[in-house]
Amino acid sequence: MTDPEKPVLFHMVPSRGMVARWMLEEVGVPYDLRLLDGKKGENRAADYLAINPMGKVPALRHRGVLITENPAICAYLADAFPAANLAPAVDDPRRGTYYRWLFFAHGCVEPAVIDKAFERPPVQRGALGYGTYEDVFDTLEAALAPGPWLLGEHFTAADVIVGGQLAWGLRFGTVEKRTTFVEYAARLAERPAHQRQTALDGALIAAAEEAARTA
Amino acid sequence: MTDPEKPVLFHMVPSRGMVARWMLEEVGVPYDLRLLDGKKGENRAADYLAINPMGKVPALRHRGVLITENPAICAYLADAFPAANLAPAVDDPRRGTYYRWLFFAHGCVEPAVIDKAFERPPVQRGALGYGTYEDVFDTLEAALAPGPWLLGEHFTAADVIVGGQLAWGLRFGTVEKRTTFVEYAARLAERPAHQRQTALDGALIAAAEEAARTA
Repeated sequence: MTDPEKPVLFHMVPSRGMVARWMLEEVGVPYDLRLLDGKKGENRAADYLAINPMGKVPALRHRGVLITENPAICAYLADAFPAANLAPAVDDPRRGTYYRWLFFAHGCVEPAVIDKAFERPPVQRGALGYGTYEDVFDTLEAALAPGPWLLGEHFTAADVIVGGQLAWGLRFGTVEKRTTFVEYAARLAERPAHQRQTALDGALIAAAEEAARTA
Repeated sequence: MTDPEKPVLFHMVPSRGMVARWMLEEVGVPYDLRLLDGKKGENRAADYLAINPMGKVPALRHRGVLITENPAICAYLADAFPAANLAPAVDDPRRGTYYRWLFFAHGCVEPAVIDKAFERPPVQRGALGYGTYEDVFDTLEAALAPGPWLLGEHFTAADVIVGGQLAWGLRFGTVEKRTTFVEYAARLAERPAHQRQTALDGALIAAAEEAARTA
């Protein structure tokens, strides 16, 4: 029997699921993995499309509810496990700052990085969209400059999301190596939860590569 | 003196600020407006860039904190004014569903609509981005089909965000006129808070047009 109180992560490596897993490690509760093989197209197979019709990974199931979208998963986990202290309380004004950066990551950083990665011409600034790549990263840099985290001394789920994006972007060249970003990513990499996730997912990636070599 | 307990909306008509104002009407507390004139470029003037360096409207100030990104503003208001009952409680599993659709709106619906409006070729499905326009709207249609709202009988801030996007998209042709969407938009249009916002912003738009005519 599956325990509905134990979160289940639908996961794939490498994928954005690694950010959700990092969040689970920050929360510090036991969780189960359902590992999908992207090379076999398991994320687009009927079984998984019945779970998430978008065919996207990660997804999280907890207490009978399915959650998709990485920042939704992280915001949910922060609320569901308040002992981990990964979000300001609902009556704390800094809750607004917390939501601001979670949605900024999803609605501004993400499309800015995608457009840069695929060399797409920007859309009209103003009525639609995130503005410009420079606006997005200048704004983010100003938010991160005081440090150590987006909400000062309080590390939150917003750091997991923004940090996950920056680490990925710094690695693949879609985010400029500004000192503020590099130092923030270095602080994040020192977190024990991040190191556990990196080791666990690193082992999964190595196993998949080994399996491909000997296939 | 400004009362920090009274939300201040940095607003412009027409703009996405109309969705934030609808949310304020749903919350049902007094609020102040700071109306910017987009034709005069006031959202890109130094005064406003000091408030929101992205130059985007809306922004909300409450208890000394500035919040940007429409879904962040709506999620914040739902938490800050729990008497309005516009979000599941933090220990309710449906909180996951609530976040799912808030972030889906910002990270999937928004870029899908923008790419369609600007006739941009889609990016590679999979590692990056929202997938396809069809994936996004099929998924949203399935979520809305049971009705009346995204969380069944519980109207939440997620309906304000998704409803605002759909109403805009149905009007400007970037969202297909599927029956589920049209009927959902019709239910939303009947809400007293939505009608108050439409009347108030309609008067602002009419006044701006009159001023332009007589200038």
